[in-house]
Amino acid sequence: MILKDDSINMHRMLKGKIEIQNRVPVENIFAKENSLINLIYTPGVAYVASEISKNKELAYDFTSKWNNVAIVCDGSRVLGLGNIGPDAALPVMEGKSVLFKILGGINAFPLCIATQDKEEIINFVKYIQPLFGAINIEDIESPKVLEIIERLKEEISLPVFHDDQHGTAIITLSALINSLKLMKKQLEKIKVVILGSGSAGYGITNILTSAGCKNIIVVDSNGALYKGRRDLINNPFKAEIASKSNPAKIEGSLDLVMKGSDVFIGVSGKGNILNDKMITSMNADPIIFALSNPDPEILPQYALDAGAKIVATGRSDFPNQVNNAVVFPSVIRSLLDLRVKVLDDQLCVNVAYAIADLVESKHLKYDYIIPQINDQRILPVVTQTLKSVIQNTVTTNIIK
Amino acid sequence: MILKDDSINMHRMLKGKIEIQNRVPVENIFAKENSLINLIYTPGVAYVASEISKNKELAYDFTSKWNNVAIVCDGSRVLGLGNIGPDAALPVMEGKSVLFKILGGINAFPLCIATQDKEEIINFVKYIQPLFGAINIEDIESPKVLEIIERLKEEISLPVFHDDQHGTAIITLSALINSLKLMKKQLEKIKVVILGSGSAGYGITNILTSAGCKNIIVVDSNGALYKGRRDLINNPFKAEIASKSNPAKIEGSLDLVMKGSDVFIGVSGKGNILNDKMITSMNADPIIFALSNPDPEILPQYALDAGAKIVATGRSDFPNQVNNAVVFPSVIRSLLDLRVKVLDDQLCVNVAYAIADLVESKHLKYDYIIPQINDQRILPVVTQTLKSVIQNTVTTNIIK
Repeated sequence: MILKDDSINMHRMLKGKIEIQNRVPVENIFAKENSLINLIYTPGVAYVASEISKNKELAYDFTSKWNNVAIVCDGSRVLGLGNIGPDAALPVMEGKSVLFKILGGINAFPLCIATQDKEEIINFVKYIQPLFGAINIEDIESPKVLEIIERLKEEISLPVFHDDQHGTAIITLSALINSLKLMKKQLEKIKVVILGSGSAGYGITNILTSAGCKNIIVVDSNGALYKGRRDLINNPFKAEIASKSNPAKIEGSLDLVMKGSDVFIGVSGKGNILNDKMITSMNADPIIFALSNPDPEILPQYALDAGAKIVATGRSDFPNQVNNAVVFPSVIRSLLDLRVKVLDDQLCVNVAYAIADLVESKHLKYDYIIPQINDQRILPVVTQTLKSVIQNTVTTNIIK
Repeated sequence: MILKDDSINMHRMLKGKIEIQNRVPVENIFAKENSLINLIYTPGVAYVASEISKNKELAYDFTSKWNNVAIVCDGSRVLGLGNIGPDAALPVMEGKSVLFKILGGINAFPLCIATQDKEEIINFVKYIQPLFGAINIEDIESPKVLEIIERLKEEISLPVFHDDQHGTAIITLSALINSLKLMKKQLEKIKVVILGSGSAGYGITNILTSAGCKNIIVVDSNGALYKGRRDLINNPFKAEIASKSNPAKIEGSLDLVMKGSDVFIGVSGKGNILNDKMITSMNADPIIFALSNPDPEILPQYALDAGAKIVATGRSDFPNQVNNAVVFPSVIRSLLDLRVKVLDDQLCVNVAYAIADLVESKHLKYDYIIPQINDQRILPVVTQTLKSVIQNTVTTNIIK
């Protein structure tokens, strides 16, 4: 377990992967003559506060609000580790914050909170609005989190991004678009099996449907979801998935529905759940996205040995990292800069195609289907895509 | 209004006085070989998260928690500006955060929150505990804030510092100790008038009483507080002040009680409220601390013209800055490092004497009664003081 020891030692050494730093030149801040402290603190700051009290919008000009994002997490569904609690989620969210800064130039506050109650989480997000330009919801269990997202979109004025849903959906579609190019298959004609019907499964079903995919079967621990399955009555989001997928109302377990499929997308949160028999039962040129972290549904080598042509995981230590980290810094940077409030499915599809197009046909190969996480071309194309869609759409809500 | 224009321009230029930065060396973070990203994010971070889920204390070792303080403010009583709301409080709290970093090396998150409800504020603080090592409550109106502090001390496990109460009390006592040395007066024999019975008035009354001062009269907008005053029945904190002060139960307005006093301490939040007649009615060698910001109860030159010997304000552009900023970074640095949970009045008195002693007798003069805000000797003496008291006290609660 070298990775375990190295990671723990690195965290012990760093004692925190992020910190707050000053943007103020502090060198001579207390110098007597024209002291800078008089401007940034009392008495001068009182004038700035008074101006904002007359016009709240000025907080975007006079404070860090324009560039601040809250990562809100209750620790109820962290990576594939499950409900490990908010304290244990903290190093993960600090890691996210590091990526936000490197890849998007964003101040991301890792707000791991000690409540897992839906209404309290919604209230919490309402409380913190003054400091932030956008909200990123992270690693909260579904269906609770999907209700939270719907409520927040209605009840607060800031843009709300749900990384596990929107971020994962976008990068998965990007990866699928390019995989299909290599396999010379069409999105409209393939059969896709999605394992997992939480936030990621919900988001992927929605984006694939919006993109034109017609044969999706989503599987949870009770087997394939289909319209009318009794236990879906208590989960409107699973019911929504069922209504959009599995047109033939096939019932059965994963190994059954895998037969004759072209693509497997694992977002189950569980490792080592896909076996070689399932892969050999697929159509020719199987595409396997085993995206659960830290343990993918199948390890890449096993999948390749079983006949998979393209394999992707969510991890940075294998090729083809299909991880929302490729997406969220650029999308949220763009949401902040453009002051976009609503990110709908069509917008997500457009962003996915723009990211997929960054891999030119001549470079495209089985182990290079999407841009690397640190590809500096991602941010400009995402911003450009959102900008053009905003200009062409009347329904998109831009907050002044 | 050069100060106003300069301050607004400075804030417009900075667009935020603080930001989140990485402590991780990001230079080659995505390098293929032994990539650092594998350690600080998935998959490696999962091991760190798992360890913390087994032992929450490890968050102090593996994350920034040990060095994070929340500045919690609802915007209900900001500087002397009153209830300007949380958005307008943001530049003030960012200024505080700058001081926290420069003077204490602390990450202070300026959490200006969009609720002014007592129970909601208490809940909010409970929610945010996982990320923080200490809580600093700031610029919330009293008596609400005093109830919040009492409740939080009981109901959460982190140290709670109330800057307007504890910070202001400590630095005021430091300034008074040294002023009395210059005037050759004794704390036990002087008459002190405190204008303002909010958080600062409450804290100063408590610390002066603990330090041995026997003749304090606190004045609010209804005149002198005395035991039995009818309207105090609804405010237990004002009633507590009355029970500890004004032993002769003098009734009347500020100008009446100022007669024959030695010290005036203004923490009323209102500017230009003390006049020259009040000062001339005081005992010989008047000491005037006009601490409200941004507008002191009397401008220093007016007070000196009226016969005041020593004048202090809360502002950085006059001599003798009696501002909690001299205290809070060092005290909270020490609370974090020593893992002290409770800061009682006696501890505050000891810290005040230690800070006062930093000004040696030979340097002490009317316009130099306390150390400058950036005196680097403050932190070590505060830490040393807290350390020695902890060792000598059984009642002090040290959280493991």
